[in-house]
Amino acid sequence: MRIRNIKNAKEFVEESKYVISDYEKYKNKHNELFGNSNPIRLEIGMGKGDFLINMAKKYPDINFIGVEKFYSIIYRAIIKLEQEEIPNIRILPIDAIDLEKAFGKEIDTIYLNFSDPWPKKRHAKRRLTSDLFLKVYDNIYKDKAMLIQKTDNRVLFEYSLMSLTEYGYKIEELSLDLYKDDLSDNVQTEYEKKFSDNGDIIYRAKYTRL
Amino acid sequence: MRIRNIKNAKEFVEESKYVISDYEKYKNKHNELFGNSNPIRLEIGMGKGDFLINMAKKYPDINFIGVEKFYSIIYRAIIKLEQEEIPNIRILPIDAIDLEKAFGKEIDTIYLNFSDPWPKKRHAKRRLTSDLFLKVYDNIYKDKAMLIQKTDNRVLFEYSLMSLTEYGYKIEELSLDLYKDDLSDNVQTEYEKKFSDNGDIIYRAKYTRL
Repeated sequence: MRIRNIKNAKEFVEESKYVISDYEKYKNKHNELFGNSNPIRLEIGMGKGDFLINMAKKYPDINFIGVEKFYSIIYRAIIKLEQEEIPNIRILPIDAIDLEKAFGKEIDTIYLNFSDPWPKKRHAKRRLTSDLFLKVYDNIYKDKAMLIQKTDNRVLFEYSLMSLTEYGYKIEELSLDLYKDDLSDNVQTEYEKKFSDNGDIIYRAKYTRL
Repeated sequence: MRIRNIKNAKEFVEESKYVISDYEKYKNKHNELFGNSNPIRLEIGMGKGDFLINMAKKYPDINFIGVEKFYSIIYRAIIKLEQEEIPNIRILPIDAIDLEKAFGKEIDTIYLNFSDPWPKKRHAKRRLTSDLFLKVYDNIYKDKAMLIQKTDNRVLFEYSLMSLTEYGYKIEELSLDLYKDDLSDNVQTEYEKKFSDNGDIIYRAKYTRL
């Protein structure tokens, strides 16, 4: 089944219990939505959801929200999710630039996994680590928040190191070749599995926003 | 000829016109020593001197001082230098930790090329990008100074990115695989030639100290 042929993806997605379809409704109330006071973490660009689902299973005391703007992609994650019962996952079908509309200062950690590198310089502002997005994240972070990035894209990772440190983030952990370091805590994404099996370098950085 | 067999390296080195043997004599007076008001740049750990010599030839309007604590290594550079007439080079046979004794606020740029990685964590303070050394550099920089690092050592480069940005340096340029980027301005060191010929990744960062 080709994603582009799923005509009713949006309808299907919005019917799922995992999906927050009215994104303004829970602003500052996501802990009510989850029915607990656990930390809330976002994955922006969740793709088919492997990372989100495996993280949620591994850390049941943390709430995970996947942010994804393409319904055709969310559809694939929902297919997987509907076969399971995972109380600490939700999916938010919006563009990351609109995160402030959906959240108050509620977010503990943002994960950026294998984000679109927007390789052309004139598109740099569209990268999820440009100051355009960093300003948005500042409005949804709780105190002492974290941003954790993984990517195989060298230019995106170089750009992000410069952009985030200039913006005021502190690098807490850094690996310029993750698969040569300690992987005991690592949860793979779909892309990551493919690229690392292929011998590509995977970069990872953990930043704190003070 | 094996370096360790050169018994009189120190004597030989100190007789060279390229060597600043009385390192306190020119504190705040290095421009007098060079007889011009051009910028002064240091390479700390100059090895056999290929980078320093080629930079000095390429940029005759910049003064270059090579810092190296091992006389047996300086000896090799002097052998090369004595065959040429390069007015904008000097060599300073001291340990980097003593740089404050030799310099006032005179330095424009510091180059750290393929520095000793001191791979064990308990030796991290000995790395030339530890805060121990960064404090020393602060006392010899002119305003808006630069630090430019090249290395093939991943752990040293990761450490340096964290250490320098935390200390307050800004990353101006970054390459996590220099030999895939624009090399038109690159001047190789002896190690770099060997490692890059071998297909190893070379990392490079240019930092400014504001």
